[in-house]
Amino acid sequence: MIYLDNSATTRPLPEVLDSFQKAADQYYANPSSVHSFGSEAERLLERSRKQASSLLQVDPQEVVFTSGGTEGNNMAVKGIAFQHQTRGKHLITSRIEHPSVIQAFGALESLGFEVTYINVNKDGKVNLEELKGALREDTTLVSIMSVNNELGTLQPIKEIGQILKDYPKIFFHVDHVQGIGKIDLPIKDWGIDLCTISGHKIHGLKGTGALVVQKYVSLFPLLHGGSQESEVRAGTENLPGTVAFVKALRLLHEDQIGKSDHLRTLRHLLWTSLKKRSYCQINSPKDGAPHIVNFSIPGYKPEVVIHSLGEKGIFISTKSACSSKQPDVSTVLKACNLDHDLTTSALRVSMSYQNNEKEIEKFLEILDTTVEKLQQTMG
Amino acid sequence: MIYLDNSATTRPLPEVLDSFQKAADQYYANPSSVHSFGSEAERLLERSRKQASSLLQVDPQEVVFTSGGTEGNNMAVKGIAFQHQTRGKHLITSRIEHPSVIQAFGALESLGFEVTYINVNKDGKVNLEELKGALREDTTLVSIMSVNNELGTLQPIKEIGQILKDYPKIFFHVDHVQGIGKIDLPIKDWGIDLCTISGHKIHGLKGTGALVVQKYVSLFPLLHGGSQESEVRAGTENLPGTVAFVKALRLLHEDQIGKSDHLRTLRHLLWTSLKKRSYCQINSPKDGAPHIVNFSIPGYKPEVVIHSLGEKGIFISTKSACSSKQPDVSTVLKACNLDHDLTTSALRVSMSYQNNEKEIEKFLEILDTTVEKLQQTMG
Repeated sequence: MIYLDNSATTRPLPEVLDSFQKAADQYYANPSSVHSFGSEAERLLERSRKQASSLLQVDPQEVVFTSGGTEGNNMAVKGIAFQHQTRGKHLITSRIEHPSVIQAFGALESLGFEVTYINVNKDGKVNLEELKGALREDTTLVSIMSVNNELGTLQPIKEIGQILKDYPKIFFHVDHVQGIGKIDLPIKDWGIDLCTISGHKIHGLKGTGALVVQKYVSLFPLLHGGSQESEVRAGTENLPGTVAFVKALRLLHEDQIGKSDHLRTLRHLLWTSLKKRSYCQINSPKDGAPHIVNFSIPGYKPEVVIHSLGEKGIFISTKSACSSKQPDVSTVLKACNLDHDLTTSALRVSMSYQNNEKEIEKFLEILDTTVEKLQQTMG
Repeated sequence: MIYLDNSATTRPLPEVLDSFQKAADQYYANPSSVHSFGSEAERLLERSRKQASSLLQVDPQEVVFTSGGTEGNNMAVKGIAFQHQTRGKHLITSRIEHPSVIQAFGALESLGFEVTYINVNKDGKVNLEELKGALREDTTLVSIMSVNNELGTLQPIKEIGQILKDYPKIFFHVDHVQGIGKIDLPIKDWGIDLCTISGHKIHGLKGTGALVVQKYVSLFPLLHGGSQESEVRAGTENLPGTVAFVKALRLLHEDQIGKSDHLRTLRHLLWTSLKKRSYCQINSPKDGAPHIVNFSIPGYKPEVVIHSLGEKGIFISTKSACSSKQPDVSTVLKACNLDHDLTTSALRVSMSYQNNEKEIEKFLEILDTTVEKLQQTMG
């Protein structure tokens, strides 16, 4: 099997599974229980929080553990909107955010909030002039992702942070689910107030993640109840999941330091090889994230190509998994103003540090024979 | 170690951990991915949903997997309130619900909803006449738990369902986190529209659970995004967690059938033994759930007793874990109108099918010596 759908989800590392198992079996007490068995669990939780905070270069109390990226994004977007609605009900995002951001904004619109959706250029980059022009007295939130999940586009997060320095009352949220461990994002230096990350995209476990919330930010909780997670996220702490998540975060950090050239080499190989093939057109910007290459094979439904490749044990995707059950056209590519034949035939290869050159070469070889066969069938 | 804090959380069963491990390692694809590896994961998810639905005696599409009890309760309470607010903004609950229900209602009050809190008698039972009198034209939701988490009180869920038959527009939510596997709750027969359950209270894993949502109920999602879970709960499905949760549910079902006498025997032993001790007073109603006994040792701070017992390897609790970091007084016991010296000295023993008579006897023996020592220290 050649797994090239790492932006949808990744295989948990054995070390991550071991950590989970150990914590689940040996530290099963409720970290909120007052007895010493509960305190042991609480100490392990706080050790994990400290480790995560040091990897993310924020303070421990700024790390809020969540059930994943969708929760983090909903918590940030709705949490700021509700908490600060007496100051204003205007929010800003881009047209190509992940469904968990776009739909959260849509939900807020249905509740009376006003949302400005910033346009992007053909590479998927948000228009900074348009963003500047959209900022208002009653704006409370700007939410822009660091790396687009379909294209790999890097957004100008540093520049947006710079612009927002003149608007101290506007909160800045970054969905960093696709960027973590692939690109640097100095949260504090770049003026980011809230930042979402997820466990299962980094060889951790599904159902885990974190939202970084700078300590001066007040949020309306998504989950009310007990006073866990500094009273901003109620619910019995998922200690084994958190321990596993932080383990994945640590191992990813080591990969990013040691193997970032490896990932860039793989992408370069894939990029230059696809560029030579006349049957396809690359949609990702050349300067995109090192793990994603999006391309179209005009005239062929992505599902058909994916299934054919699947039969040979190669797994790639179309669009994001979270919108893959929607109709064929990619709203992200459409927002980039790509032609209809490109937006309806897009494929995404997403790599991990675990992939190697041999796999990329094998993928290219099988892609060629697959397209050839499809051309014959349809010809 | 004698673990008697099973209402706070339980030890995951080895079979549950095995199921988790297997699913996490072998079915790691995103169930929403269109390739065949994703489809395999999706099939396993739907098999799990089917099994859960059959155990809960509802339809598969009525089982929505969540990250746990707090999410289920917030999703039900806020989801009904928001979705049906054009019809009315009045909601009803009791004074002794779990923090994840009470605080969710509090949050709704801060957003302009009106909440009626039904009083309870000294056993913690909700006053049905008061409930009847509170029902209004603009009421959209009644939320009452099946088993109180501190006292074990069984609420008259069947009777409430009966009353609400005359109010077809009012939704009925039951927080069944403490009741699942301990008491019968025929969801459909009793007119329950939404029902919350959690994995880690039944020897499953933290971060897992389900909300049963009858198919005619429309909810405003808590988590917007992808179209997972019938578009009512977005986010990459936590397949390993779900598989483990359903495994725990199945094993619990077998326990409930085979060992319900065992749990009642343990409770009877504990009850009659505590009754004989002059230093304590039982707060739980005699006809309560088979796994919880709440009692007070007037004059002694619960934390002190808990720590002393903890030193001997015996773990019990005070109040619920989700409110244990709050000040000493139990709001649940206070709502039952118990005297101040009882509400500030309450302890909870909560059992599982795994406990045995020897453990209860050992607990009683060590409780006696602990109280004796404390009396001497304070005398």
